Amino acid sequence: MPVMTAEQIHSFLEEHFPQISHLDMRIEDVRKNGITVRIPYHERHLRPGGTISGPTMMALADAGTYLAILAQLGPVAEAVTTNLNINFLRKPGQNDIVAQCNILKLGKRLAVGEVTIFSAGEDDPVAHATMTYSIPPRE
Amino acid sequence: MPVMTAEQIHSFLEEHFPQISHLDMRIEDVRKNGITVRIPYHERHLRPGGTISGPTMMALADAGTYLAILAQLGPVAEAVTTNLNINFLRKPGQNDIVAQCNILKLGKRLAVGEVTIFSAGEDDPVAHATMTYSIPPRE
Amino acid sequence: MPVMTAEQIHSFLEEHFPQISHLDMRIEDVRKNGITVRIPYHERHLRPGGTISGPTMMALADAGTYLAILAQLGPVAEAVTTNLNINFLRKPGQNDIVAQCNILKLGKRLAVGEVTIFSAGEDDPVAHATMTYSIPPRE
Amino acid sequence: MPVMTAEQIHSFLEEHFPQISHLDMRIEDVRKNGITVRIPYHERHLRPGGTISGPTMMALADAGTYLAILAQLGPVAEAVTTNLNINFLRKPGQNDIVAQCNILKLGKRLAVGEVTIFSAGEDDPVAHATMTYSIPPRE
Repeated sequence: MPVMTAEQIHSFLEEHFPQISHLDMRIEDVRKNGITVRIPYHERHLRPGGTISGPTMMALADAGTYLAILAQLGPVAEAVTTNLNINFLRKPGQNDIVAQCNILKLGKRLAVGEVTIFSAGEDDPVAHATMTYSIPPRE
Repeated sequence: MPVMTAEQIHSFLEEHFPQISHLDMRIEDVRKNGITVRIPYHERHLRPGGTISGPTMMALADAGTYLAILAQLGPVAEAVTTNLNINFLRKPGQNDIVAQCNILKLGKRLAVGEVTIFSAGEDDPVAHATMTYSIPPRE
Repeated sequence: MPVMTAEQIHSFLEEHFPQISHLDMRIEDVRKNGITVRIPYHERHLRPGGTISGPTMMALADAGTYLAILAQLGPVAEAVTTNLNINFLRKPGQNDIVAQCNILKLGKRLAVGEVTIFSAGEDDPVAHATMTYSIPPRE
Repeated sequence: MPVMTAEQIHSFLEEHFPQISHLDMRIEDVRKNGITVRIPYHERHLRPGGTISGPTMMALADAGTYLAILAQLGPVAEAVTTNLNINFLRKPGQNDIVAQCNILKLGKRLAVGEVTIFSAGEDDPVAHATMTYSIPPRE
C-alpha cells in the first residue's frame, strides 16, 4: 500500500523538483501501485496546430511514474529513469490531460511502470508510455 | 466489435502462419478491441534456468496483437509490425503463459496495441509489451 | 541529399516552433540523412543532483530527429512523432549536450531516426533514442 | 577489450543455449564493445510473403547483444534481458541477415546495447533494436 498521501507528494515535488513546477501537476488519486495525475490546460503546453506537445506528455509520463514509485517507497527513494518508451495515439485537444500511472514491477533494483494519458473527458487515450527506473541500493 | 470468432482466427492462423504453429496458440477470448491468447507449456519454450524464453514471449506478444487487429478488421488485413517494445518483469515458471492483448488505437494507417503476459494462475505479470502495426491502404 | 541548410532550418524553427526556443538549439552540421544539434548549457535544464534533465534530452532527441527529416524533405513536411524510445546511459555533467541524429528510414508514410546524445567533450554517450514519425500524404 | 574469442563464444552458445541452435548463429567479428553476427538464410526463418520473420530478427538482436556482453565480461555472466525495443524498417529478402551489435553502456548493474540488422549485401538496414540487460551482482 502507498506510504505517502497526495498532499505529501505535492510537498515533496515542490521542494525537490521546482524545475517541473511549470507542469503544475495535481495528484488526483493515490492507490496501491498507482496514482492519477492531472496537468491543467495552459497554452505554454501547446505545439503548432494547437495540441498539447509531445514533450509535455513525456514529462508527465516520466514524472507521474516517478511519483507512483515514490508513493510506494517513501520520500527517501532516488529512482532514476533508465528507459522511456511512448506511443502518441491521438492529438489531444486544448484541455487538461490526465495520466493513469500504474506500477508493473517494484523490484529491489528496477521498477517498471505504465502510463495511459487521456485528454480530460475523452474515452480514447492520447498517449501510452512505459518506463523503467533504477532504484539505488538502500542501506 | 470484432468481426471474426476465435474459431475463424484459428483457421486463419493455421492457413497463413504455419511457421508459428510451434507456439500452439489458443484464442481464449475475443472481445471489443482485445483478445486473450494462451500458449500451453512445452519444454521447447524454455531457456537455461528453466523459465519460458524471451523470444517465446516476444513472438506471443507480436502474434497476439496481430490477431487482435485481425479480429477487428477481418481476414483481409495485411498489417506489418513496425515497432515492438517489451519489458521483462519476472521469470515465468514452467507453466502455460497467457497474453491479454488490447488495441489502444486502430487508425487508417497505424494500429497500436498493448499486451500484458501472465504465467497461468499468477497475479503479477511476467512481461508487458507495446506494438505498432502499419496497415496497408485498403481499396 | 539535404534540401535545407542549417541557416534555413534555424529560421524555420524560430518561425514555427517558438515554444522550444527555451532549448536554444544550434544546428552544427547538416549531412545526408543526418544532422548534429547542440544545446548550450543553461541551469534551467538541470534536475536535482545538478545533471541535465531527462525531459531536456527527450525534447532534444524528438526535435533533432524532426529537423533531420525536415532537412531531407524541405519545409513543407508536417511529420508527427508516433513513437519515441530513449535509454538514459550516464549522468551528463553541467555542460552543453550534443545530439547526433541519423535517419534510418525515410519512407512515404513513416520515418525512423536514431539519436545518440553526448555531454560536450565526452566520448561515452549519455543517452540514446529511436523515434518514428508519421509523414502525412503529400499531394 | 573482449576477453573471449569468436570460437569460445560459439562453444559457450552450443553448450548453454541449445534452444537457439535453430538460428545457426555465426560470430563474424569480435571487437571492443561489439560483435558482428550472421544468420545464414534458411526457409524456416521466413514469414508469409517470403521475408525473414520479425521473431527471427528479435531473437537475433537479443542473442547478439547478449553475446556482445559476454565477450566483454567472460562466460561467468548471467545477464538477463529486461527491455527490448525494435523498429522494423524494410522487408529483408531471402538472404542471410547480419547484425552489428554495439554496447552503449556496460555498467555494474545494467548493460545497454544497440543492434543494426542488414540483409546481407544491402546498404540500408532492415531493422534496428536497443536492449537493456540486468547484470547480476558479481562476488
